[in-house]
Amino acid sequence: MTITAAEQWADFTPIRTPEDYLASLRGRKIDVHLFGEKIADPVDHPIIRPSINALARSYQLAIDEPELATAHSDLIDAPVNRFLHIVASPQDLVMKSRMQRKMGQLTGTCFQRCTGLDAISVLHSITYDIDAKHGTSYHARFIAFLKQAQRNNLLIAAGMTDPKGDRSKRPSEQIDPDLFMHVTKRDADGIYVTGAKAHMTGGLNSHWICVMPTMNLGPDDKDYAVVGMIPTDSPNLTFIYGRQSCDTRALEAGNIDKGNAEYGGQEVLVVFDNVFIPHEHVFMDGEYEFAQDMVARFTSYHRASYVCKTGLGDVMVGAAAAIAEFNGADGASHIKDKLVEMTHLNETIYSSAVASAHEAKPLASGIFMNDAMLANVCKQNVTRFPYEISRLAQDIAGGLLVTMPSEQDFDDETTGPMLRKYLKGRGNVPVEHRQRMLRLIENMTLGRNAVGYLAESMHGAGSPQAQRIQILRGMEVERKKGYAEALAGIEYTDAV
Amino acid sequence: MTITAAEQWADFTPIRTPEDYLASLRGRKIDVHLFGEKIADPVDHPIIRPSINALARSYQLAIDEPELATAHSDLIDAPVNRFLHIVASPQDLVMKSRMQRKMGQLTGTCFQRCTGLDAISVLHSITYDIDAKHGTSYHARFIAFLKQAQRNNLLIAAGMTDPKGDRSKRPSEQIDPDLFMHVTKRDADGIYVTGAKAHMTGGLNSHWICVMPTMNLGPDDKDYAVVGMIPTDSPNLTFIYGRQSCDTRALEAGNIDKGNAEYGGQEVLVVFDNVFIPHEHVFMDGEYEFAQDMVARFTSYHRASYVCKTGLGDVMVGAAAAIAEFNGADGASHIKDKLVEMTHLNETIYSSAVASAHEAKPLASGIFMNDAMLANVCKQNVTRFPYEISRLAQDIAGGLLVTMPSEQDFDDETTGPMLRKYLKGRGNVPVEHRQRMLRLIENMTLGRNAVGYLAESMHGAGSPQAQRIQILRGMEVERKKGYAEALAGIEYTDAV
Amino acid sequence: MTITAAEQWADFTPIRTPEDYLASLRGRKIDVHLFGEKIADPVDHPIIRPSINALARSYQLAIDEPELATAHSDLIDAPVNRFLHIVASPQDLVMKSRMQRKMGQLTGTCFQRCTGLDAISVLHSITYDIDAKHGTSYHARFIAFLKQAQRNNLLIAAGMTDPKGDRSKRPSEQIDPDLFMHVTKRDADGIYVTGAKAHMTGGLNSHWICVMPTMNLGPDDKDYAVVGMIPTDSPNLTFIYGRQSCDTRALEAGNIDKGNAEYGGQEVLVVFDNVFIPHEHVFMDGEYEFAQDMVARFTSYHRASYVCKTGLGDVMVGAAAAIAEFNGADGASHIKDKLVEMTHLNETIYSSAVASAHEAKPLASGIFMNDAMLANVCKQNVTRFPYEISRLAQDIAGGLLVTMPSEQDFDDETTGPMLRKYLKGRGNVPVEHRQRMLRLIENMTLGRNAVGYLAESMHGAGSPQAQRIQILRGMEVERKKGYAEALAGIEYTDAV
Amino acid sequence: MTITAAEQWADFTPIRTPEDYLASLRGRKIDVHLFGEKIADPVDHPIIRPSINALARSYQLAIDEPELATAHSDLIDAPVNRFLHIVASPQDLVMKSRMQRKMGQLTGTCFQRCTGLDAISVLHSITYDIDAKHGTSYHARFIAFLKQAQRNNLLIAAGMTDPKGDRSKRPSEQIDPDLFMHVTKRDADGIYVTGAKAHMTGGLNSHWICVMPTMNLGPDDKDYAVVGMIPTDSPNLTFIYGRQSCDTRALEAGNIDKGNAEYGGQEVLVVFDNVFIPHEHVFMDGEYEFAQDMVARFTSYHRASYVCKTGLGDVMVGAAAAIAEFNGADGASHIKDKLVEMTHLNETIYSSAVASAHEAKPLASGIFMNDAMLANVCKQNVTRFPYEISRLAQDIAGGLLVTMPSEQDFDDETTGPMLRKYLKGRGNVPVEHRQRMLRLIENMTLGRNAVGYLAESMHGAGSPQAQRIQILRGMEVERKKGYAEALAGIEYTDAV
Repeated sequence: MTITAAEQWADFTPIRTPEDYLASLRGRKIDVHLFGEKIADPVDHPIIRPSINALARSYQLAIDEPELATAHSDLIDAPVNRFLHIVASPQDLVMKSRMQRKMGQLTGTCFQRCTGLDAISVLHSITYDIDAKHGTSYHARFIAFLKQAQRNNLLIAAGMTDPKGDRSKRPSEQIDPDLFMHVTKRDADGIYVTGAKAHMTGGLNSHWICVMPTMNLGPDDKDYAVVGMIPTDSPNLTFIYGRQSCDTRALEAGNIDKGNAEYGGQEVLVVFDNVFIPHEHVFMDGEYEFAQDMVARFTSYHRASYVCKTGLGDVMVGAAAAIAEFNGADGASHIKDKLVEMTHLNETIYSSAVASAHEAKPLASGIFMNDAMLANVCKQNVTRFPYEISRLAQDIAGGLLVTMPSEQDFDDETTGPMLRKYLKGRGNVPVEHRQRMLRLIENMTLGRNAVGYLAESMHGAGSPQAQRIQILRGMEVERKKGYAEALAGIEYTDAV
Repeated sequence: MTITAAEQWADFTPIRTPEDYLASLRGRKIDVHLFGEKIADPVDHPIIRPSINALARSYQLAIDEPELATAHSDLIDAPVNRFLHIVASPQDLVMKSRMQRKMGQLTGTCFQRCTGLDAISVLHSITYDIDAKHGTSYHARFIAFLKQAQRNNLLIAAGMTDPKGDRSKRPSEQIDPDLFMHVTKRDADGIYVTGAKAHMTGGLNSHWICVMPTMNLGPDDKDYAVVGMIPTDSPNLTFIYGRQSCDTRALEAGNIDKGNAEYGGQEVLVVFDNVFIPHEHVFMDGEYEFAQDMVARFTSYHRASYVCKTGLGDVMVGAAAAIAEFNGADGASHIKDKLVEMTHLNETIYSSAVASAHEAKPLASGIFMNDAMLANVCKQNVTRFPYEISRLAQDIAGGLLVTMPSEQDFDDETTGPMLRKYLKGRGNVPVEHRQRMLRLIENMTLGRNAVGYLAESMHGAGSPQAQRIQILRGMEVERKKGYAEALAGIEYTDAV
Repeated sequence: MTITAAEQWADFTPIRTPEDYLASLRGRKIDVHLFGEKIADPVDHPIIRPSINALARSYQLAIDEPELATAHSDLIDAPVNRFLHIVASPQDLVMKSRMQRKMGQLTGTCFQRCTGLDAISVLHSITYDIDAKHGTSYHARFIAFLKQAQRNNLLIAAGMTDPKGDRSKRPSEQIDPDLFMHVTKRDADGIYVTGAKAHMTGGLNSHWICVMPTMNLGPDDKDYAVVGMIPTDSPNLTFIYGRQSCDTRALEAGNIDKGNAEYGGQEVLVVFDNVFIPHEHVFMDGEYEFAQDMVARFTSYHRASYVCKTGLGDVMVGAAAAIAEFNGADGASHIKDKLVEMTHLNETIYSSAVASAHEAKPLASGIFMNDAMLANVCKQNVTRFPYEISRLAQDIAGGLLVTMPSEQDFDDETTGPMLRKYLKGRGNVPVEHRQRMLRLIENMTLGRNAVGYLAESMHGAGSPQAQRIQILRGMEVERKKGYAEALAGIEYTDAV
Repeated sequence: MTITAAEQWADFTPIRTPEDYLASLRGRKIDVHLFGEKIADPVDHPIIRPSINALARSYQLAIDEPELATAHSDLIDAPVNRFLHIVASPQDLVMKSRMQRKMGQLTGTCFQRCTGLDAISVLHSITYDIDAKHGTSYHARFIAFLKQAQRNNLLIAAGMTDPKGDRSKRPSEQIDPDLFMHVTKRDADGIYVTGAKAHMTGGLNSHWICVMPTMNLGPDDKDYAVVGMIPTDSPNLTFIYGRQSCDTRALEAGNIDKGNAEYGGQEVLVVFDNVFIPHEHVFMDGEYEFAQDMVARFTSYHRASYVCKTGLGDVMVGAAAAIAEFNGADGASHIKDKLVEMTHLNETIYSSAVASAHEAKPLASGIFMNDAMLANVCKQNVTRFPYEISRLAQDIAGGLLVTMPSEQDFDDETTGPMLRKYLKGRGNVPVEHRQRMLRLIENMTLGRNAVGYLAESMHGAGSPQAQRIQILRGMEVERKKGYAEALAGIEYTDAV
């Protein structure tokens, strides 16, 4: 079952276009399950395809707007897709934010390429730091990997979230050791890992999965301190597809009721059963004391990556403005005020994300990391404001949002004319435009992409309480008490 | 096409049990369209049936808890289902609120019987007032109708919302006169009406439809000032079923992923093409000046009826508490605090509803009407708090809410064991319990019953701005300015 | 130092008018401290007088609106001020709510008579329950006391909040035993108590102080389980006046900048140094196990008493509407919308208060108590909404609210004409009207009555967390989990 | 009455230290009115002095932290106080933000130096643009002025807000032409202006007042299109001091009850009666079409300047944390959670401010301006979050915040020991520390600096609705509709 790193790389050819990307996904030996069935060809499965389209758009964007979606990689001295670029400066993080917002505007969903992007920057710095302490050579291994990935323009998905089992117990204390991913065997060629990664965004659509610890580890958890890259089509992987609200509309005829027929997100549970990783692709093995920092850095990057939701927020503002116009209500002052509020909330999120990018600090390996406080503040607002933006969009949309008959009824000989007669809004607006815009709002607030816009905004990159803990840690309360005491005239004979 | 009132009544037999009710719906000649197809038997259609079950529960409740769900009708000197009872006292309104909350707890959805309930009280008073002014005999007609309905324990749905077309124009000014329901012909036997009623809650599941004007009318709108009762299976009616988020899960095998397999809501668009109403069932015809009052009274009753959402809120609190327990997180202080907040918001809504009931005022016909200000305040909070309660429930639920594989994958030989191994929560809790509870939360926050819990909370009984206009009208600003001026020491030589 | 109950009563004569009330406060031997000075005659002290005026208004209201502010007392078979009336029915609690709102509208401040009102109902039921268990005769003693108080129309203040010291320790565990009030000696005539009561609302303005335990007590805390009535002018009492924002404006010439020149609140710290209470006025002595219930009942009544803040909220709405008009901005849609929001929030509070009254339940002694959940919900909203109402009022007021020169500058020969020239608002509105209205808004949002409208709304009757604990206790989570489990299809082989 | 520019400059000597600054304010012939009296020496007036101290701190900070509070001026090729520095880069704006936050932390109030700072950048670009169109030489004049100001390290206050009178009328349409500042006469030496500027922050404490139009102007308003610099001690100026909540506590003995004894804000109304400005100090005269841009640029800078409130927010967080500790409540989870929320809100404001700085765009004159959308979003959040932060601080503080007796009572022989006995909090914390911290919180939420922290946050740099109008203008709704339409599949045969 062992395979060399070189063999793993042999099959890849450089990807440039969306078409190249789709081709790269076809014909893989990959064990995917959906609705109790094994899916022969995920690429052409109507439920899965929109999630692939969303990722494909990242290839197209690099072609359409190279200044936004590509960057020069010093590693290979060539332009690379920005989703594979190591952040060499605050400005790189700013550009990343803008690209993420744009991708959100263009797809209206989770485009799944950020976990890998954030993982590679984390690995750049963490492998460097481990080497510095332990004299290992993870950093060079990682750089070698990354160069290949950049040259081939590949997709990497981060596999971070272990199932965790009994949350009051550490990994090594679990009754079932597999509830956290761990090394089961080591040999001359590499290591074997067993476990599962949950909520893996776009896992199926990627070329490589980067498995990483999900939380801080102790000395007894050494076998759990493992980071490695695994090709998505490796043996002994099983992908179980997560279902989403309204997922089966993708199976229906017609393309209106889908709301957003082109794009969707993807979450999979991936099970690893003694999966082999050659040493070249192992970037941590046993250095448990770095797990906490790895997670902290990942969240600093990744919580700011939720700036993508402002792109979806732009779609919501646009959709609400459009339906208001189609309904003939766009002149009402309360409608304008609600659009302003939606925009205000959306830009507040954007502020924190882009501020955390501009205020990035360098790490020892020479790269930059988002300001942790502002990244956490960004994500905390993301757990709130998209819900309010959705609520306001539903307000503006009107009740027809949830009472409109199906597309098939609009096409029917009997009911079609009735619906067009009675559901007419403003004079010159085709009824189909109302239909489409209402279905898009449904898609993003109740349907398939509400998963990405709402629930993922809540839990992705850590649930709200996780951010609050980070804010608590970073709030420098002693310094602030000092300001208050100085103004209140409180003096301590001994230093505080 | 004419038919006498007596003939219309001939087919009904008294309904007592849910089974009686289902029987009453079978075999009707009724033109129902869903997904572009004419539905032969709505009762057994898997998408429609849950909405019928919800209504059926109102019959069961009257058997299980008669003190809550029945009342003594002086009209027929017998107990009647409270959904058919004229509110003779504030206490009747209080009991109505409690019954609505209970129905919400038992069904977790919109049980569709409130528009008819609120309509009959409105008609009691409005017909009385019209008669007093015009010497008509609508009140006696209405009482006669109501006695029959009570004796047979029938369902009435209010058909109120006209499509409205160009919102800047009055009914009589529309290019297409049918965009508001109107009388097309009058003869010795009765009248004929044409138009459509949108967002008709449970329209298909009712025995009678009460058509009513949707807004205030002027002298030119006389033909639009029409109120009448129409049997659901009358000729020339077309029902077009409104689709809902995740509606087609009802067509899937299994009963877990449905979330709430038993109950759902229903919204239909009903088209009326010269539908005949015998004079006995006409309760307004031309008295346009009463339209505004009719609408105002209906909203006073009906906005308080949204107390039902506190029943759904109870389900949300219970579901969030249960999943927290299944996840092993119920001891965390932030979880408890979120449950408290959910309860606080839910009880705040309840406060306003039940206060508006207790503070009801009598109308000329001798019945009582909810306090208008408090009913509007109740509904305004309903347009906000269920969204926040849902957000908190999604927070507590965890990310698995939107990444969990399908029920079929849990049943599959290959993936089932993996899922049960890796998605195990707290030790003694079956994985299926987590599945079921997460699917229920999905159902109520993103899926089929999110329509009832969220979007209907927003728009039912009038969108948020409609309540704000009523609050503006009722806020007695001059009186309050007087208090402020007195305290500020402002004196006017002339009285304000 | 002992004195009989009869002697204590000898000095009182029935009070009917505000003037009677003022007379009753003059010439008392009472030890009051303010700004480091002992105040000879509190009644005529310009800082204290407004707080007395607020209480006096309760006498006037009983004369002006007897149906609202008086009730028939079966105890003395005569009408009594409603502030001395035992709640014999839910309707009594509803009338109490209305009276409190009215008092808030008329005074714009805390009128200080509610703690006593709520205390007497608590004592009615608790003395009854203690007697039932212990065979004591507290209830008869209390009734005898109350009859006298009713006949003389006296003011009672509840002394509840002990200083508490180290909050991790019980009363009997404190290093300084006086940090909770306790019995220091018992003899044939009565008992002696030592301790302090903090935040005593209107303590100085009352005739009697009812000392009561502040929290649940254990067997070791027996000496702390004491309830008794003490005349305000008893020996060994020291009153230390709490200062308030802008309190010294009352000492300034002029009456505009005071904002509300007539009315204010009052909080005092009262120190008791071996104060004697004759047995007739002792209503608990050692029955520690009733302390928790006493507190719970007090909060059920008293948290609903914060309905008074809706009266202040009415003043805020009126003031904001008036200043908008004076500024010429009342036609702007965003101004109207803010007034609606203020009203909506205010009526939401009212809903919960009045609902908790209507939904009151009887206690063993035959009286009624507010619904505990709704009373807590009411108070929880009171800790939030007045702040938002204030914020909106400051928004509507405009910046002049905090930049307007003093009244003296308006009166000055040089600056007066400049100010009248440049601070003119809408044409026909005297500049003085703007001045007065802005000063009232300042008074209620930043100044003296902001204490009553904001900080007291936060902490009175228990800080926010106290309500959340009660909501947690009362939220019946098991019942609600049952609803959710039923809908989710979860079945337990054994009962939950 | 004319005076040359050179003569105006003759009296200034370079200021370096706070002492220099105080000296520069003494002995001015300046007409100041407060409480109906003309103030001989404002510098030593106890109410005014704290506002001067706040400004003085800006001189000290430049000495203590030169990298933060100074910058190199290319104009004079020397370091200058950053409050006089033209923003040459986004980084300059970022450093400005940090300095403003620091000044807020150090003073806990409005330090009044930002309007001048923002005005000079606006003038740099606007004079440049006017010259480009009209061939005038305002830019050179302004640069000459600024060099002098930089060399002498002077304070400039912006005088922007005209009284406005009837808001439905333009300046030239007002009955009283003086309700907007305008040129009354022009001669060879200069111009004369008449009018008033309201809400002038720190006007009295500055050396120069920069008068500027307050809104967009039309062709008939040419005489109102005037910008000029006026020495604060020019003849014909009258300053009328705005009073603040608790302002007279500064007149009391003791220094505890002041809350923040050292620092305060200042707002004055300044009346200009034919005040002469030599041509060298006139930077606009008649170019009305630039008024709108001038205001828009000023608000872009100035709305982001409200980042200073995050410094005050830091004080609030510190004060709340300190009082929680003094009260012994800092371990409670709800207290920690409230501190996190305060921090989260505060950092959200900071995000938008610093993001608007980083995202600054260059103007024609070569300087940079904050991103307008993010600056407006920042200020909009400032109109909300400080109120919530204050509310939470009052929650944490406890009721003693508003019931604590005066400092004099703590010093009194009789009451002092009682207060120290009974108001003791956590064991080792002196009661005076509780006193001081509670008074600071009172100062910032109800007292003198609540003016700066709350009402000024609401109205400074434009009231909330002004930001909403800017957000509406900048929200690019057509672009966003395009995104929504693309995803919804709506195609237009003609371009949108």
